[in-house]
Amino acid sequence: MTNDFDLDKAIRKIKDFPKEGILFYDITSILTNPEAFSFCINKMEEIYKGKKIDAVAAAEARGFLFAAPFCERLGIPLVLIRKKGKLPGKTITKTYALEYGEDSIQIHIDDIPSGGNVLLVDDLIATGGTLKAAAELLEEAGAKVSGAFGVVGLPFLNFDKALSGLEIHTLVNYDSE
Amino acid sequence: MTNDFDLDKAIRKIKDFPKEGILFYDITSILTNPEAFSFCINKMEEIYKGKKIDAVAAAEARGFLFAAPFCERLGIPLVLIRKKGKLPGKTITKTYALEYGEDSIQIHIDDIPSGGNVLLVDDLIATGGTLKAAAELLEEAGAKVSGAFGVVGLPFLNFDKALSGLEIHTLVNYDSE
Repeated sequence: MTNDFDLDKAIRKIKDFPKEGILFYDITSILTNPEAFSFCINKMEEIYKGKKIDAVAAAEARGFLFAAPFCERLGIPLVLIRKKGKLPGKTITKTYALEYGEDSIQIHIDDIPSGGNVLLVDDLIATGGTLKAAAELLEEAGAKVSGAFGVVGLPFLNFDKALSGLEIHTLVNYDSE
Repeated sequence: MTNDFDLDKAIRKIKDFPKEGILFYDITSILTNPEAFSFCINKMEEIYKGKKIDAVAAAEARGFLFAAPFCERLGIPLVLIRKKGKLPGKTITKTYALEYGEDSIQIHIDDIPSGGNVLLVDDLIATGGTLKAAAELLEEAGAKVSGAFGVVGLPFLNFDKALSGLEIHTLVNYDSE
């Protein structure tokens, strides 16, 4: 029913962003296209409706854009995964390696459902590094991370290895150039 | 119909964040409370349904959380107001003064509806400085900014002066301590 929309055409491709040699898949062109945006949220609903999800954990900032309409529509609590220093309450922190250097994410500890199922949401899943760190953080706090969702997937960057054991859904995948 | 929900109770108040002496109104406690979150989006729909809005411009990152469900539900294009360097396409930039120092915001120029009505959305409106800068940027690009929405308003910080001429709606206001 919602399968006849060509999401690929709604995603702008920008060369050499954020640095030379990278082809950037820009989801802002979905947001300015109401048909494309609703297609994504409808697909998320189709995939997850009826599954037991106690909370969605969404990665700052583009993950918020897809997680928020999904959570609001399905009545699922939304937990934010933010960069260090952004969340005002009591947080737990995970520092993880990047290609060069490292980064830290935080989650409000009181927002994590102990023993509950959590779905990770981001706009794009590439290496899976941030979501892997988020999954570790959530599991350390007693939640069970059951899956990960991205509008766009870049499987050639091997997110399936980083997120092994999770049920992963993406709406469109791209191969290496 | 949706007026019987006490939104104030769903907003967590955190002392001394981000610095001593500031009482921070934390909207993440709305996101983890599906009834509160839907109340906000329902109220936005009540306020703006039937009005001519050609695009919503939402301030990074918490503004995304309310703008995205609203835009998706009403089929309104969503334009992002981001910190410098985050948007991959061709942008226009506005630098504006903060209490100490300055900050810069950017918008994708191709996302701005020339001659169209734009509604500004953020989670909280305090001094109105960021939204004022966004309004100037949008109007320089040929759009008409007709209003501003915040879930929370802090009128004692005089956003009505910074945003004079705009129709401003907030769902709950707080006075100075």
